[in-house]
Amino acid sequence: MFSFKIISKDTKTHARVGKLVTPHGVIDTPAFVPVGTKATVKGLTPQDLKECGVQILFGNTYHLHLRPGEDIVAKFGGLAKFMGWDGPTITDSGGFQVFSLGQLSLSSRTRFGISGDEVEMLKQVQHDNNNEQPRLVNITDEGVKFRSHIDGSPHFFTPEKSIEIQQKLGADLILVFDECAPHPSTYEYTKEAMERTHRWAVRSLNYHKRHSGEQGDSRIDSGSSTRMTKKSPQALYGIIQGGVYKDLREESAKFISNLDFDGIAIGGVAVGESKKEMRDVLEWIHPFLPEDKPRHLLGIGEINDIFDAVEWGMDTFDCVIPTRFGRYGIAFVGQPEGNVKNKFRLQITKTAYARDEEPLASNCSCSVCQNFTRAYIHHLFRAEELLAYRLISYHNVYFITHLVKEIREAILDGRFEKLKKEWIKA
Amino acid sequence: MFSFKIISKDTKTHARVGKLVTPHGVIDTPAFVPVGTKATVKGLTPQDLKECGVQILFGNTYHLHLRPGEDIVAKFGGLAKFMGWDGPTITDSGGFQVFSLGQLSLSSRTRFGISGDEVEMLKQVQHDNNNEQPRLVNITDEGVKFRSHIDGSPHFFTPEKSIEIQQKLGADLILVFDECAPHPSTYEYTKEAMERTHRWAVRSLNYHKRHSGEQGDSRIDSGSSTRMTKKSPQALYGIIQGGVYKDLREESAKFISNLDFDGIAIGGVAVGESKKEMRDVLEWIHPFLPEDKPRHLLGIGEINDIFDAVEWGMDTFDCVIPTRFGRYGIAFVGQPEGNVKNKFRLQITKTAYARDEEPLASNCSCSVCQNFTRAYIHHLFRAEELLAYRLISYHNVYFITHLVKEIREAILDGRFEKLKKEWIKA
Repeated sequence: MFSFKIISKDTKTHARVGKLVTPHGVIDTPAFVPVGTKATVKGLTPQDLKECGVQILFGNTYHLHLRPGEDIVAKFGGLAKFMGWDGPTITDSGGFQVFSLGQLSLSSRTRFGISGDEVEMLKQVQHDNNNEQPRLVNITDEGVKFRSHIDGSPHFFTPEKSIEIQQKLGADLILVFDECAPHPSTYEYTKEAMERTHRWAVRSLNYHKRHSGEQGDSRIDSGSSTRMTKKSPQALYGIIQGGVYKDLREESAKFISNLDFDGIAIGGVAVGESKKEMRDVLEWIHPFLPEDKPRHLLGIGEINDIFDAVEWGMDTFDCVIPTRFGRYGIAFVGQPEGNVKNKFRLQITKTAYARDEEPLASNCSCSVCQNFTRAYIHHLFRAEELLAYRLISYHNVYFITHLVKEIREAILDGRFEKLKKEWIKA
Repeated sequence: MFSFKIISKDTKTHARVGKLVTPHGVIDTPAFVPVGTKATVKGLTPQDLKECGVQILFGNTYHLHLRPGEDIVAKFGGLAKFMGWDGPTITDSGGFQVFSLGQLSLSSRTRFGISGDEVEMLKQVQHDNNNEQPRLVNITDEGVKFRSHIDGSPHFFTPEKSIEIQQKLGADLILVFDECAPHPSTYEYTKEAMERTHRWAVRSLNYHKRHSGEQGDSRIDSGSSTRMTKKSPQALYGIIQGGVYKDLREESAKFISNLDFDGIAIGGVAVGESKKEMRDVLEWIHPFLPEDKPRHLLGIGEINDIFDAVEWGMDTFDCVIPTRFGRYGIAFVGQPEGNVKNKFRLQITKTAYARDEEPLASNCSCSVCQNFTRAYIHHLFRAEELLAYRLISYHNVYFITHLVKEIREAILDGRFEKLKKEWIKA
């Protein structure tokens, strides 16, 4: 029901090509995973995503728990069926959003009518990191109290609760509940958060082992005679944290790698760190990663980063930027117009494109580039038309998915470094 | 290059089936025309529209003149090519929007820095109709001065200017510049506006005859040897006005029908009139309409209205509501859930649909109804996701387009009245 096999390895770097088999389908790795936060990749249909070559989608547990709720998703057969996606999915644990969204600004406090006493109570754990920013989220070893960013309602996530929700959401790949410390954080706070993440990893794993296959398991065909009892149809990934501190990252890599996870995720590299720091983290942890387990890098999707991630042996990586950039009017472009300096970005709203007859990217074969000019998409953006966001989002998802496919083929042909050099010129 | 042929006529009503041949393709009538105000049917691609069975699109001259401007559209080969639509198009004259959008509220006056003197000057023509609302649009027999709703810039439309712009936009069917009096208006004001509309109709026609085929005519294949000289590749429609006054409508129908237009449009029936008044207008004007010219009813698209329009011999009709309703979360539904009482509307945002496993409309074969549940689309709306607007808009355009196709087939089979009764039960 779940397996991972390495097909080919690059001889000069740590890049590798693999095959990740899940109950909902096979993923050829390396693979880019578009984010469908609220059970939709913004503006695009599952059919669009198939056309773009997408193999697997990412959903956010925090958002799906708040709306529509995991019980509704489970009733409809899990995340994939609920959204009409015929393929594998992955969900995060909710940890990252709990910390980044489940906070109370003064304005939202007023809006949601929360008393001063309660704010003081919520504040008590707060001054731990060197930001000196009071974070209105109550973190204890038991779990995290937070407020919904939608209506201010109180919620409490524990490692067990996160896994329970993810089991109902029914994704193929799921993640342990972790604390992603803000960046920058002190060594002391990062260590404390990492150690808590480790304790939570063990609890997530134990809960998953005890309860997997028992609920929300509508993903198994009802006609099937082999209902899972011991081995879950959901693969659980541990998460390595440790911020920008080498010894912490090494300790976390060892700890998570030694547990009985199906895969390894790397967290906290997309939270403010520079590209240099992301590369450092991947280099530090690499010696400790088990070769045979699939690896997911959380929150990465710019072109430079993708090359680095693959070079350091990452198999999958998710990111919102193809669709977020779509809504900002930023299209990914390759050569000749794209390069490291402009970050392979074309800002379609610029006046220069008002009469431009070219497609978004010269060498792109996506249906948007086949059918529409920059001038037209520029016009749609200026007019704030819905179609603008859809068209660039589609192009960006296609562009990144195809770049990663190209990378996969280059590794198989022994020319990964050559391809990287062609894109990332010194 | 342009022809209209009646294929079949209903024996009991005035309904008719026709074939409208244009340079960009053939339209089987009756046909519904989705509105692509700013060179896009909101949220949908031309490919989507083809899938929905759409034959012809409607563009708005006022909007396209302001942004991106007719010169850019002409540079790209006209409206259809600019937006990637391989089919016929129709543009309005800008008249309706000039009066409804080209007005200056006090707030926009401040915003655009327009002086008090200028406002007084603009106000001078204002207290003509019984609304007693000062309209900050300066109407004279020469034309209309108005301000852009985007940036407050001053513009002046005349019948000649409107045709000139429409020639550059290059749609297959174009409309004369008219004044659509607000509803309600006094008899006196309606008469004055109608008479001006008649004078403008003559000027529009004369300008079109003198200048057609000379500019903006990139719609003719450059490889073609027959460049138009006498007969324009654009068919010009006159517009019947006259409000809710029988003698004015009759007068207008006679006047417009006696001029050398390629087609006849009926204006002002969607501006506040009740269904009853729309039917009355169609009945009043019917005896005076030339049988052999195609007829377009402006701004009609609800299901009841479509049946009435077809019954009174209308061939095409445009409306924004399939996509506007899409953005409001209203889906068109037929039986069993839809009926005259609920106006064939389903409000997907209602809590009742949160767990509904059915498609938007039970008997719809569109790809949205084949692939998504009400519960999922309900969730998308609650989450304010872009995909929500897209999916319902697609369904609505498909739904209306297919209803009109069904009507067309029913007329051919001599069962139009039966079909109407099935839908519009007493």
